[in-house]
Amino acid sequence: MKQSQLFTKTRKEAPSEEMSVSARLLIRGGFVEKISAGVYAMLPLGFKVLTNIENIIIQEMDALGGQRILMTALMPKKNWEVTGRWSSLDVLFKIARESGEFYALGPTHEEEVVPLAQKFVYSYKDLPFSAYQIQTKFRDEPRAKSGLLRLREFSMKDLYSFHADEGDLDDFYEKAKKAYSKIYERVGIKDKTYLTLASGGTFSKFSHEFQMATDAGEDIIHVCKKCGLAINREIKDLYPVCPECQGGEFEEKKCIEVGNIFKLKTKYSAPFNLQFTDKDGQKKAVIMGTYGIGLTRLMGAAVEANYDEFGIVWPGELAPFDASLIAIGSNDPSKNEKIVSAAQNLYEDLQKAGLEVIYDDRIDKSAGEKFKDADLLGMPYRVVVSEKTLEKKSAEVKARNSKTAKLVPLKEAAAGRF
Amino acid sequence: MKQSQLFTKTRKEAPSEEMSVSARLLIRGGFVEKISAGVYAMLPLGFKVLTNIENIIIQEMDALGGQRILMTALMPKKNWEVTGRWSSLDVLFKIARESGEFYALGPTHEEEVVPLAQKFVYSYKDLPFSAYQIQTKFRDEPRAKSGLLRLREFSMKDLYSFHADEGDLDDFYEKAKKAYSKIYERVGIKDKTYLTLASGGTFSKFSHEFQMATDAGEDIIHVCKKCGLAINREIKDLYPVCPECQGGEFEEKKCIEVGNIFKLKTKYSAPFNLQFTDKDGQKKAVIMGTYGIGLTRLMGAAVEANYDEFGIVWPGELAPFDASLIAIGSNDPSKNEKIVSAAQNLYEDLQKAGLEVIYDDRIDKSAGEKFKDADLLGMPYRVVVSEKTLEKKSAEVKARNSKTAKLVPLKEAAAGRF
Repeated sequence: MKQSQLFTKTRKEAPSEEMSVSARLLIRGGFVEKISAGVYAMLPLGFKVLTNIENIIIQEMDALGGQRILMTALMPKKNWEVTGRWSSLDVLFKIARESGEFYALGPTHEEEVVPLAQKFVYSYKDLPFSAYQIQTKFRDEPRAKSGLLRLREFSMKDLYSFHADEGDLDDFYEKAKKAYSKIYERVGIKDKTYLTLASGGTFSKFSHEFQMATDAGEDIIHVCKKCGLAINREIKDLYPVCPECQGGEFEEKKCIEVGNIFKLKTKYSAPFNLQFTDKDGQKKAVIMGTYGIGLTRLMGAAVEANYDEFGIVWPGELAPFDASLIAIGSNDPSKNEKIVSAAQNLYEDLQKAGLEVIYDDRIDKSAGEKFKDADLLGMPYRVVVSEKTLEKKSAEVKARNSKTAKLVPLKEAAAGRF
Repeated sequence: MKQSQLFTKTRKEAPSEEMSVSARLLIRGGFVEKISAGVYAMLPLGFKVLTNIENIIIQEMDALGGQRILMTALMPKKNWEVTGRWSSLDVLFKIARESGEFYALGPTHEEEVVPLAQKFVYSYKDLPFSAYQIQTKFRDEPRAKSGLLRLREFSMKDLYSFHADEGDLDDFYEKAKKAYSKIYERVGIKDKTYLTLASGGTFSKFSHEFQMATDAGEDIIHVCKKCGLAINREIKDLYPVCPECQGGEFEEKKCIEVGNIFKLKTKYSAPFNLQFTDKDGQKKAVIMGTYGIGLTRLMGAAVEANYDEFGIVWPGELAPFDASLIAIGSNDPSKNEKIVSAAQNLYEDLQKAGLEVIYDDRIDKSAGEKFKDADLLGMPYRVVVSEKTLEKKSAEVKARNSKTAKLVPLKEAAAGRF
């Protein structure tokens, strides 16, 4: 798209109350705007990033065989009373209707997905299956002060799996673990993200968190220096040595949770009496797993892990555009028509070649301002057309994560062969 | 996908409290499930329909130049006090935090989009632009009893346009009107949908609603017999003759509103003081328009307009799958391997040809049950492979909206040439 059409603008400064680097850069770039503590609107560039994250997650969940659904934010109080979480979950937003009826505003969906499954599961033949949704979740976080990393309203993917026995859950759980690793790789945070043992509550020995190391985080993990498995500080006492490799040396890291997977077993199927008839004619409780990942938080985390002093350095799959195209005017105004026309052609050719391009066609901005904006916005490539480059029938191409630019013949550049 | 994998099942009966045909068919087909009054979860087939509607709307909004954003459901009370709607909008869900802070749960987003625009609009050079979102909306509807037609929680597209003068708003408004007509055509309700004059409040003479004729509706419109323009009963007294063609004969129709467009002018920019500096250096209020369409309601409306005694007849662009593929076993079990293998090949070939297919591979269902389910689910084509069709190296193809089936050579059928 043409940058002159984009209704947002970059800013030199972020609001002083924004503490995290990611929130400061995302606001300065016009990706997001803070509405209130822990509540952010997605602006056009930010929404494109969120959509890119969503597409990655959809692909990985579909590959797992997950069936996509969309549950509701307004959840009847009665289901939350069945599990006891109406009173025990302190982040639950509660809505009172004038009629006296109450809703929970969905922070997670075990209380809805289990009664839903009950409508369709009768026999072992109806198992296994898994269903996921990407939905806006609500949690009344008291400490909502780290930009997109800790929100009261956020987009989340939650997957629920349903099995006839624990062996089948175990198999699926391992596949889900691998799918999560792929997601972290594709969103550009794999190097900093640790599979972490965490408390499993009363129903499993432990759950797994995925923790990304960052100074903006509020959790502490102990990373085994030998094998890289991490243990959440909350349960570190249980593990004098690493349960994976028996290593005894750990490194403490500050981090933020970017996903968790959990063998629920019968924790939620039992209270709702979600049962099936097994091959032997016996009624049994359905065995469940749950697998969560916050999309909005991933967006913040991806920036925490990918920036430099000039701005964001988007991982390729997340960037709202593949390239920023910049035309630089000449000191000799008579040459500008040719420059603008060359830039326009390149803009069109790049799109024909399948690239998404943001073309900085703003006439009231200096070359310096355009360069600064392109660095702040962080597209993978910056492509410049000027009098100088055109003399050599070239465009200047610089990868965002490289310090050096190079001249690329216009024909090559037009095909996206940077 | 294979129907044996789908976790939902069809039902013979819908819950007795469901009054509208569309809700009854959608629940029986396993497209949606009622969670509470006016609150429905989207199951895999229903979510696919909703996504198809979403894609149509995205295309038409992008063609208008709308920039996609995503605003928030949690909206600070203070913005709703600026417009007075904190106390005047009776369907507003209000959330009290323990801290004493209040949120409105977004039923519409003028109260957010105007302060957002204020961050980026300074000069006439920043205008015009338009931004839209597709978002879950919340309205505390007292009469939530018509399935997807009147919901407390629903997916809605809301577009907002910002202009320097009324002439520019008028131009955009006409384009938006045409975009809406295209949407109704693509979702299969154009024949029953009327452009309708409605009350415009104090700031414009009138707004336009799009009203779809259906017995499930609760509005009444008067349709001009000469030109087809409709007038909402609420303001019919103002128009003794049709303002478009001066015709004097009208027909009353029961209907449901499936969209509305509204020249807000300065109704919301004034209270928030959203201004710009014009070419002449004068500060002026930004001129606005708003354009809404409910996706979930469109899904219900599309069914109200497209069904028969056997089930849903999805318009092509909305169908979750292009075809239902059915394999029918032989009385001679030794022939079944060949039938299943032919069906499996056809399933794979159709997908290679770019069609989305639901293959009813269930072994515990009779031919009759499979036919009934295919009719209820309403994909545009039903493709049957049996001993009889294979003898003629063919598949039997029946369009859902046709009474007659025909034999199509397997090679043709495999390429989707029905």
